[in-house]
Amino acid sequence: MSADEQSGPGRVPGRQFFFNPGPTHIPDSVFGAMHRPVIDFLAPEFIEVLTRVHERTKRVLKCSQHLLFYGTNGHGAWEGALANVFSPGDKMLMIESGHFSINWAKMAQELGLEVELLAADWRHGVPAGALEERLGKDKAHEIKGVMVVHNETATGLAHPIADIRREMDAAGHPAMLLVDTISSLASFDFRFDEWGVDLAVGGSQKGLMMITGLSFIAISERAMAASETAGITRSFVDWKQMMTVKPQRFPGTTPVHLFYGLDEALRILEAEGLDRVFARHARLAGAIRAAIAHWGEGYRSGIRVDADGPSGPVEKMELLCADPARVSNSVTAALTPSGIDANHFRRIALNKYNLSLGQGLGPLAGKVFRIGHLGDLNEPMVLGALATMELAMRDAGMPHRPGGVQAALDTLGQTN
Amino acid sequence: MSADEQSGPGRVPGRQFFFNPGPTHIPDSVFGAMHRPVIDFLAPEFIEVLTRVHERTKRVLKCSQHLLFYGTNGHGAWEGALANVFSPGDKMLMIESGHFSINWAKMAQELGLEVELLAADWRHGVPAGALEERLGKDKAHEIKGVMVVHNETATGLAHPIADIRREMDAAGHPAMLLVDTISSLASFDFRFDEWGVDLAVGGSQKGLMMITGLSFIAISERAMAASETAGITRSFVDWKQMMTVKPQRFPGTTPVHLFYGLDEALRILEAEGLDRVFARHARLAGAIRAAIAHWGEGYRSGIRVDADGPSGPVEKMELLCADPARVSNSVTAALTPSGIDANHFRRIALNKYNLSLGQGLGPLAGKVFRIGHLGDLNEPMVLGALATMELAMRDAGMPHRPGGVQAALDTLGQTN
Amino acid sequence: MSADEQSGPGRVPGRQFFFNPGPTHIPDSVFGAMHRPVIDFLAPEFIEVLTRVHERTKRVLKCSQHLLFYGTNGHGAWEGALANVFSPGDKMLMIESGHFSINWAKMAQELGLEVELLAADWRHGVPAGALEERLGKDKAHEIKGVMVVHNETATGLAHPIADIRREMDAAGHPAMLLVDTISSLASFDFRFDEWGVDLAVGGSQKGLMMITGLSFIAISERAMAASETAGITRSFVDWKQMMTVKPQRFPGTTPVHLFYGLDEALRILEAEGLDRVFARHARLAGAIRAAIAHWGEGYRSGIRVDADGPSGPVEKMELLCADPARVSNSVTAALTPSGIDANHFRRIALNKYNLSLGQGLGPLAGKVFRIGHLGDLNEPMVLGALATMELAMRDAGMPHRPGGVQAALDTLGQTN
Amino acid sequence: MSADEQSGPGRVPGRQFFFNPGPTHIPDSVFGAMHRPVIDFLAPEFIEVLTRVHERTKRVLKCSQHLLFYGTNGHGAWEGALANVFSPGDKMLMIESGHFSINWAKMAQELGLEVELLAADWRHGVPAGALEERLGKDKAHEIKGVMVVHNETATGLAHPIADIRREMDAAGHPAMLLVDTISSLASFDFRFDEWGVDLAVGGSQKGLMMITGLSFIAISERAMAASETAGITRSFVDWKQMMTVKPQRFPGTTPVHLFYGLDEALRILEAEGLDRVFARHARLAGAIRAAIAHWGEGYRSGIRVDADGPSGPVEKMELLCADPARVSNSVTAALTPSGIDANHFRRIALNKYNLSLGQGLGPLAGKVFRIGHLGDLNEPMVLGALATMELAMRDAGMPHRPGGVQAALDTLGQTN
Repeated sequence: MSADEQSGPGRVPGRQFFFNPGPTHIPDSVFGAMHRPVIDFLAPEFIEVLTRVHERTKRVLKCSQHLLFYGTNGHGAWEGALANVFSPGDKMLMIESGHFSINWAKMAQELGLEVELLAADWRHGVPAGALEERLGKDKAHEIKGVMVVHNETATGLAHPIADIRREMDAAGHPAMLLVDTISSLASFDFRFDEWGVDLAVGGSQKGLMMITGLSFIAISERAMAASETAGITRSFVDWKQMMTVKPQRFPGTTPVHLFYGLDEALRILEAEGLDRVFARHARLAGAIRAAIAHWGEGYRSGIRVDADGPSGPVEKMELLCADPARVSNSVTAALTPSGIDANHFRRIALNKYNLSLGQGLGPLAGKVFRIGHLGDLNEPMVLGALATMELAMRDAGMPHRPGGVQAALDTLGQTN
Repeated sequence: MSADEQSGPGRVPGRQFFFNPGPTHIPDSVFGAMHRPVIDFLAPEFIEVLTRVHERTKRVLKCSQHLLFYGTNGHGAWEGALANVFSPGDKMLMIESGHFSINWAKMAQELGLEVELLAADWRHGVPAGALEERLGKDKAHEIKGVMVVHNETATGLAHPIADIRREMDAAGHPAMLLVDTISSLASFDFRFDEWGVDLAVGGSQKGLMMITGLSFIAISERAMAASETAGITRSFVDWKQMMTVKPQRFPGTTPVHLFYGLDEALRILEAEGLDRVFARHARLAGAIRAAIAHWGEGYRSGIRVDADGPSGPVEKMELLCADPARVSNSVTAALTPSGIDANHFRRIALNKYNLSLGQGLGPLAGKVFRIGHLGDLNEPMVLGALATMELAMRDAGMPHRPGGVQAALDTLGQTN
Repeated sequence: MSADEQSGPGRVPGRQFFFNPGPTHIPDSVFGAMHRPVIDFLAPEFIEVLTRVHERTKRVLKCSQHLLFYGTNGHGAWEGALANVFSPGDKMLMIESGHFSINWAKMAQELGLEVELLAADWRHGVPAGALEERLGKDKAHEIKGVMVVHNETATGLAHPIADIRREMDAAGHPAMLLVDTISSLASFDFRFDEWGVDLAVGGSQKGLMMITGLSFIAISERAMAASETAGITRSFVDWKQMMTVKPQRFPGTTPVHLFYGLDEALRILEAEGLDRVFARHARLAGAIRAAIAHWGEGYRSGIRVDADGPSGPVEKMELLCADPARVSNSVTAALTPSGIDANHFRRIALNKYNLSLGQGLGPLAGKVFRIGHLGDLNEPMVLGALATMELAMRDAGMPHRPGGVQAALDTLGQTN
Repeated sequence: MSADEQSGPGRVPGRQFFFNPGPTHIPDSVFGAMHRPVIDFLAPEFIEVLTRVHERTKRVLKCSQHLLFYGTNGHGAWEGALANVFSPGDKMLMIESGHFSINWAKMAQELGLEVELLAADWRHGVPAGALEERLGKDKAHEIKGVMVVHNETATGLAHPIADIRREMDAAGHPAMLLVDTISSLASFDFRFDEWGVDLAVGGSQKGLMMITGLSFIAISERAMAASETAGITRSFVDWKQMMTVKPQRFPGTTPVHLFYGLDEALRILEAEGLDRVFARHARLAGAIRAAIAHWGEGYRSGIRVDADGPSGPVEKMELLCADPARVSNSVTAALTPSGIDANHFRRIALNKYNLSLGQGLGPLAGKVFRIGHLGDLNEPMVLGALATMELAMRDAGMPHRPGGVQAALDTLGQTN
């Protein structure tokens, strides 16, 4: 148990409120499903589980084409999506949105691809039309893939994937569309087939309510066909060997326990129903945004953010995402008033009240705190987190208008 | 797993907020300690665990005398405390406080004892001096035992046991002092030795943070001596057979798994330290009372409550316990405005928001809701519960002044 | 976790083989079902579970009449079956079979009943006809209840309950028939209705594959009717208060977690099917008896056993139960050669090989070892236990003919 | 829980005996340690766990140099060990031993390395001196790495790593030494520092008694230095980004739960003590080999095996590994008599008796069955597995001399 680590002298009592957009709330029955003896990964009993997990995950992705799992976190699938379909020197266009868009682009470069950033203010993302315009200029179709993070976990900005597809179509451009759905899937809508996505990357540890350790790629027929002739030096993430049996095999040992867990998590998701799951995330996210708006007295600055950080000082707390049409229903980031260390506030929340919040990443370190509000979440959990944030704001001396929870209650009262 | 029951179509997502004063929050590691193969209850390895649980429980009880466990809920220990020490026709004096005092008295009667109620308004409890006065009249020392519920779970009233002992001493009365500590132990202070208690009954499922299934009796030397000559027809709860080995044996099979769980729960308690545990309960209880006072606009009626129910209509929400010196730090009950069904409000909280609150018991059914705030609890949990109550009050049409959470925050800000 | 106890320096590696007839093998999913947040025992979601457990348990008992659970081990139900239906001074006839029959009789005496032992050699049990003969003499029908332990856990002897009922009928005697099914139920056949049983006591921790903590009584209409006018001083085990709601209520807090566990265990039992479960127990028990016969070279002494112990020396190992028609399919006891301490052998098995065997009880201490072979058990588990016994016999210097496992294999080969 | 999968109509009762050399026996407390809320992977509390796991793993590896974990199975670490230290076109020498040696070589080729097989009969492995001879010819030191699988999981042959190092030294060759310890580590001795290993790959799911999902590379100072200038196109398995903080960071989300589990597993290992763990594995492996020798009547053919399969027919069962000095103490493979489908036998063992055995891999499919005997294992488990194999041999009509368990008992009797 390593119980001493879990509950030593410094243990903060009670259940930790984990509102870090890193992994998420995991139902007890998911752990229960994993607490079982090992099983031969070739046993028919396990193949049945693996097959069902494939089917269920495809239903969540709204994908009728191909799906392959990796026994890794999302970064393994990031690499798999790039290394199997593209070849050294291929040009990729990354729609900039923040830390994770930058990191995925960096990985593409490490793998020998050439990446162009479609630059954007991180608070707004790339404006409508910009992609169509850029692709329109690429008459030679040198751009082989358009990469986009559906939900930028670092900023709480969600891209309209259907619109992106429309812009690609309007430009008549044949590039593959690659979407990172790691922090969006099963929290808000994603439609692999309908939106013409070619490669969608997901992970077990966010909306799918499982521990970290599984990732996957939904693959269009077109991308699968391309993988037969293209690709980058690869072995561990290579698709060919994985597709020799149905639904798939793994290079090396299959992580059977993780599939038992994910099967149960997907069962719970399906029992609630995706539409109800999405509505719940939307309702709870709205309450969180209402609290932040209240704390900041509705302050809306014109500050921009990019890899160099914020363009100016922040007077009061405000949402990092400045486009109301793109606010995320799974992750929310708030800019804190300049001069206040967001991490000091986070440490009080964690060490004094057992509330774990996310830090600002890269240029936003200390200037932002992030709230993950996805997975097996409900009103008392969100309200408890918001109230505790206000408590920690007092302790941290962070300026705020008291009453954030009340604002959240008002919102919830209207949307229930 | 019976997963379908746990997460069927009607499952309310997220972790249930359980604020019913029935059982309590149980840390994961307590369940983990129980998930293990069976062990021979005579194996030295298990005897070591059983012995340590005895020692730890005695430290929590502040008892250096005897302790015996039963593999039952608290009612088993209630019976054991009566049946081993008293004889048919013995007269007991019960200090009235509400539902559980009445029930324990009823059990004594069923066992052939004669019980006199020291009557009290349930909102105040027996006034200071009343016990001394009553005992003073019992010149013949016909009263063999004084029974009191330390924390009346039905009303949220806590008796001052040290004062009760002082009144008994002042009256020079030799009756045994029996205390039910089921919902007080490990939530606020109890001192078996120092307060001269003769029989203290406790259970695993409240402040001790375990599942229901174990109960125990702390026994003074005097009570143990009495048990050798006195007693009521009994077998299952009989002490003699239990004391043939150290630390004890059980009639029939020992519930070994439950002791593994309790051992871990006690380890956690000791790691935090009882004084810190008590301070935490006091702080959180204060926040809850502040919210209720706010919702009811500080309303304080002169209504009395007894087995016939409230003596008059309630205009606004108020604490059931009307004596500020006796408010409980583990359970709080609130009277709801007359005409409002407290259970309707409770059902909304449960079915819509996954918040479980306690019902009014006996004559208080529908007129009271109860909040259990004991065990492995922290600020975010309490604040989330309070905010959700206000949400459910809106839905239920229950009159209240908005802002209860803010009032709780103000209190917490001062007591941290 | 108390991990240090579980795996300290003295931890014997690997999974313990628990072949003590005390509790039994518990599937992981049963523990998984218990690892869940507390739930209000009045919540409809829990009432559904409790109701289903009632129904499932009645199907296992083949009982269409009444059933009540206690949150205790089997001794609680033992007391409940006596205290609700019989009155002080009532005469009971106990069919002697060993330690547990003696103990239940003792409990009846402690509760104020008068008990007559229908004496028997523990190796054979009461001979056919003896009960009919004794009841035939009771013209005045002074005997109010006939008590029998279906499977005597201390000796591995199973009584033919249908025959007992036939003898009672043949004698035209109206006494109630009380059966302890604790170590028989769900291991071999029991038929409450068909066999005209009035009170059947069972527990969670044996064939039902759960931890210790729940027990129950199946109650005939006749016994239930009797409980309305008869009974012994009682409160905790009293039926009246338990029957005010359906399927039942509990005095005090309901042990909800235990019912979640039992529900899952019963689901597994029903998925296998009772008939297959019985066939499996019979097959495995046969293999164990074959091994013992082999080790003892088929030795069959004429020694008798009663409360004074064996009537003479034992030359070679032999089954304690000397009637092949009454050998138990859930528990087997073996007499060890005189001069050999059976407990020394047991300690080697446990401390060196992690195999837990049962001790001889009462007059059989040190003269017998017992094997529990019930619950979630299969061939590899039984064969591993048998082979390890032979290993420990070598170490302990216990005389035996090598090759017990081979004998078991021969038997299994014929019965699969 | 997906309980229906686990216990549906086809569920074979009892605990599955998992003797597949794929993953291994996992103590309950390891699962218990994983059943806990998510934690921020940057939280000091988790960093402490991660640091301790690093330290403990290094002690098991007997490595004082570098260690890096991957959140993958062993194949991820296989790739990491190759991709960070070697460059496209580098020449590797693989010491052939069977399926896994071939597969790791294939991976090296996929990554652009040139691989030469030091060919060997799979039943003996490369003869002593062959490596020294080959390296001696490589005057130009074109060979950059010598690759060897410490324990070939496909054949049950263990290489003497210290001898391999001696041959490299004798040849005065500077190639890196790469060792796959996946199925040897914590089962028998491995000494990273002392044996001059440069890159050792291990996984969580074998001797470390954890679920599949973590792997690691021990890295010598020399290999680490080489990684700064060499390497193959890589991103996910790249070391540079992982070494920016202590003890390491992960690309993407850290699989925190897996580290809690591994920490507990390592704690158990250290509590037993590596030397005792090794002695236990040796003793149990000896018993298994004795049973196989008995079943095959000590048959020892001169058949050789390579990628084309066995060189001739097999008359009776015999160990696949033909060199007594190289038999593995963690995995044993047995050649089955020609004409008998080893997989038919395996299916009976699994479907009828719940015993899972490993299949023959590649050219050995249907001609070999494999026994994994590593991890949290004891005598009853091994003996139960052996006895059940004999039971399944009867059912499958596989020729064998009865009495394998007895032969195992004889061996254990001498080595305890």
